[in-house]
Amino acid sequence: MPLLLLLLALADTPAPVKVLVAYHSTGGHTAALAKAVEAGARQAGANVTLRNVADVKCDELRATDALIVGTPVYWSNMAGQVKTFFDRFTTECQFLPPAFPMKDKAGAAFVTGGEVSSGKEIALMTILAAMLGNRMVVVSEGQALGAAATTGEGKDPLTEKELAEGRLLGERVAVLARTLKRGRSPD
Amino acid sequence: MPLLLLLLALADTPAPVKVLVAYHSTGGHTAALAKAVEAGARQAGANVTLRNVADVKCDELRATDALIVGTPVYWSNMAGQVKTFFDRFTTECQFLPPAFPMKDKAGAAFVTGGEVSSGKEIALMTILAAMLGNRMVVVSEGQALGAAATTGEGKDPLTEKELAEGRLLGERVAVLARTLKRGRSPD
Amino acid sequence: MPLLLLLLALADTPAPVKVLVAYHSTGGHTAALAKAVEAGARQAGANVTLRNVADVKCDELRATDALIVGTPVYWSNMAGQVKTFFDRFTTECQFLPPAFPMKDKAGAAFVTGGEVSSGKEIALMTILAAMLGNRMVVVSEGQALGAAATTGEGKDPLTEKELAEGRLLGERVAVLARTLKRGRSPD
Amino acid sequence: MPLLLLLLALADTPAPVKVLVAYHSTGGHTAALAKAVEAGARQAGANVTLRNVADVKCDELRATDALIVGTPVYWSNMAGQVKTFFDRFTTECQFLPPAFPMKDKAGAAFVTGGEVSSGKEIALMTILAAMLGNRMVVVSEGQALGAAATTGEGKDPLTEKELAEGRLLGERVAVLARTLKRGRSPD
Repeated sequence: MPLLLLLLALADTPAPVKVLVAYHSTGGHTAALAKAVEAGARQAGANVTLRNVADVKCDELRATDALIVGTPVYWSNMAGQVKTFFDRFTTECQFLPPAFPMKDKAGAAFVTGGEVSSGKEIALMTILAAMLGNRMVVVSEGQALGAAATTGEGKDPLTEKELAEGRLLGERVAVLARTLKRGRSPD
Repeated sequence: MPLLLLLLALADTPAPVKVLVAYHSTGGHTAALAKAVEAGARQAGANVTLRNVADVKCDELRATDALIVGTPVYWSNMAGQVKTFFDRFTTECQFLPPAFPMKDKAGAAFVTGGEVSSGKEIALMTILAAMLGNRMVVVSEGQALGAAATTGEGKDPLTEKELAEGRLLGERVAVLARTLKRGRSPD
Repeated sequence: MPLLLLLLALADTPAPVKVLVAYHSTGGHTAALAKAVEAGARQAGANVTLRNVADVKCDELRATDALIVGTPVYWSNMAGQVKTFFDRFTTECQFLPPAFPMKDKAGAAFVTGGEVSSGKEIALMTILAAMLGNRMVVVSEGQALGAAATTGEGKDPLTEKELAEGRLLGERVAVLARTLKRGRSPD
Repeated sequence: MPLLLLLLALADTPAPVKVLVAYHSTGGHTAALAKAVEAGARQAGANVTLRNVADVKCDELRATDALIVGTPVYWSNMAGQVKTFFDRFTTECQFLPPAFPMKDKAGAAFVTGGEVSSGKEIALMTILAAMLGNRMVVVSEGQALGAAATTGEGKDPLTEKELAEGRLLGERVAVLARTLKRGRSPD
C-alpha cells in the first residue's frame, strides 16, 4: 500500500473512546455486573477502565468519554460510598457550574438489589439525576433506567439475562460515546 | 466554482435536524416556556415544530430527531394530558420493545409549577424516565433536570432568567441531535 | 348488663374505618392485585370500597379514611387514566391548598408491570408523591415503596407472594387509618 | 383532689413524644432549617433532640417516636454523609427486615439547595423512600415533599417563609407521632 494511503487510513481510524466503569461492591454482585458492563463496552471497541468508586481520580473523570456507575441498593438509593463519590465531584474535583467538566460525556447506571422492587429503580434514577446535573448525556439499557440484577438473599450468582443486560448497557454507552465524539469532531 | 466542488459542498451541508417541542398548557405559562425552547432550538439551526401533545402524530414522532416535552406540574407529576401522550406511544404508535422507534433520538423536558418545590423536579424526572424507557438519549439544561419556571399563583409572566433557560434547553437539544446525526452518518 | 354500661361499650366500639381502593386495569393484573389489597383491608376490619379510578366521586374521596391507588406501569409512571384521576382532585373536586381535604388520610400504592425494573418503583413513588402533596400520611408494604407484581408478558397470573404482599398492604393501611382515627378522637 | 382522681389524671397525661431531628450541614443553612424544624416540634409539645447525622446512635433511633432528616442537596440527592447515616441502619444498627425497628415511627424530610430546581425534590424523595423502606409513616409539609429552602449562592440567610415551613414540618410530625402513639395505646 502506498505510504500516503496508509497514513490516510490511520488518520481515519479514530482513537477508541474511553469508558470508565466505576462501582462499589460489598458482596461481589455489583462487581460481577460491573465486569459484564466492562465486557460489553470493550466488545464495542472502547478502551475501558474498571474502578472502585473510591479509587477514581478527578483526572480520570476529566479524561473519560463516558462514565457508567454501579451500586448495590441500600434503602432505595445508591450506597453511601457511591454518593460520596459524586460529592467528590464538587469537593475534590471542583466540577462546578458553569464549567461542568463532565458536560456532554455519555453516562449510564447499573444496580443490584435483594428484591424485585427494593429500590433499584430509585437508585438508578438518582445516579442518572447526578449525571444530568453534571450536564452529561444519559441513556439506559436492559431495564427501563439501566441494567439491574435481583440478588435475592445475596447468595446466588447473577442470571445470564442480567449479565447480558449489563453487557448491552456497556455496549450502548461505548457506541454513544463514539457517536458523540465523531459527531463533534471537525471534518 | 467548479460544479463538482459545489456539489461536494452542498452534500456536506447536512439537512437541519428536526426538533419536536410537545407541550400541554392551560393557563399559558407552559406555552410561553415552550416558545422559548422552540426559539432556542431554531436559533441553533434546527427545524422546529411546536405542538400541543394532543395533536402530535405517530409519524411526527418517528420522523423527528429530537423530542422536548413540557408540562405544568399537577400533583408532583406531568399533567394527565402529557401522561396520556406518552401512553399513546404504546397504544396508538406501537412503539414497543424491542423495536423502540424512538431509540437514540435526543430528549429533554421542561415544566412550570406554582411553588418553588411544588413537584417540578419529580415531573421533569418522570418525563425523562419515559424517554429513557423508550431508549432515547436525554439531557438537561437550565436547572438540574431541565428548564423550570415557578409561576406563583399563575398570574405573573415568566422571568427572563426562566425564558433564557428554556432557550438554552432548546439549543442544547438541537446541538445534541445534530451531533448524534453527524456522528452516526457514514463518512 | 346495666343500660349505661351497654351504651358505653357501644360508644367504645368505633365505626370501622373506610378504605377506598382505586385502580385502573386493562389486562386484569392490576384488578387482581386490587382485589388482594381489598381483601387485606377487609380482613383488618375496614369497610372497603373497590373502584375503577374513573368512577371515584369527590364525595367518596372526602368521606374515606384511607386511599390506596393501583396502576399498571406505562413508561415508568402511573397510567394516564390514574394521572387524570389525581388531576380531577383539582379540577373537579377542588382539593386545593390550603384546605387539602385529603389531609391526614392514610395512603399507599400498588403497581403491576411487565419487567423486573420496568418503572414500577417510579410509578409507586409518583403515586405517593401525589398523596404527599395532598398532605396524606403514606406508608408502603410488600416491596420498598408498595406492593408490586411483575407480570412478564402479561399472560401469567400473579404469584401467591405478590398477592400476599397486596393483602399485607391493604391490612397495613387499614390498621394505620384506624390508629390515626383513634389517635385523633376525643377521650 | 382525691388520690384516685389525681392518679387517673396523671395516667391520662401522656408522656411527650420524642422527635429526633437529624441533619448534615456544611455552610449552616441546613442547620438553620433544622433549628426551625426543632422549634416547630417543640412548640407542639414534643421532646426534641437535634443531632448531626454522624452523632446519632442506634439506640436513639430505636427510642424515638419520629425522625426528621435534613440535608443540603449535592447532585440532586442527599449528601453522602446523610446517605451513610441511612446505610448505618443496616450495618451498625441491624435494622433489617422483617423486624424493621423503625416501623410505624413518623418520618419527614427537609432540604436546602442553591437553585430553585437544583435537585431538592429528588433529595426529599430519596429520604422519604429510605423511610418508607424502613416501613415508617411519612408526611410532608411546606412544599410538596417536605420543607425546602433555596439558598442562592450560599450567602443569604433563609427567608422567614422558609423557616415558617420548617416549623410547620416539625409541628406536623410531632402531632402525627402523638396521634400514632395515642391511637395505638390500650384504652
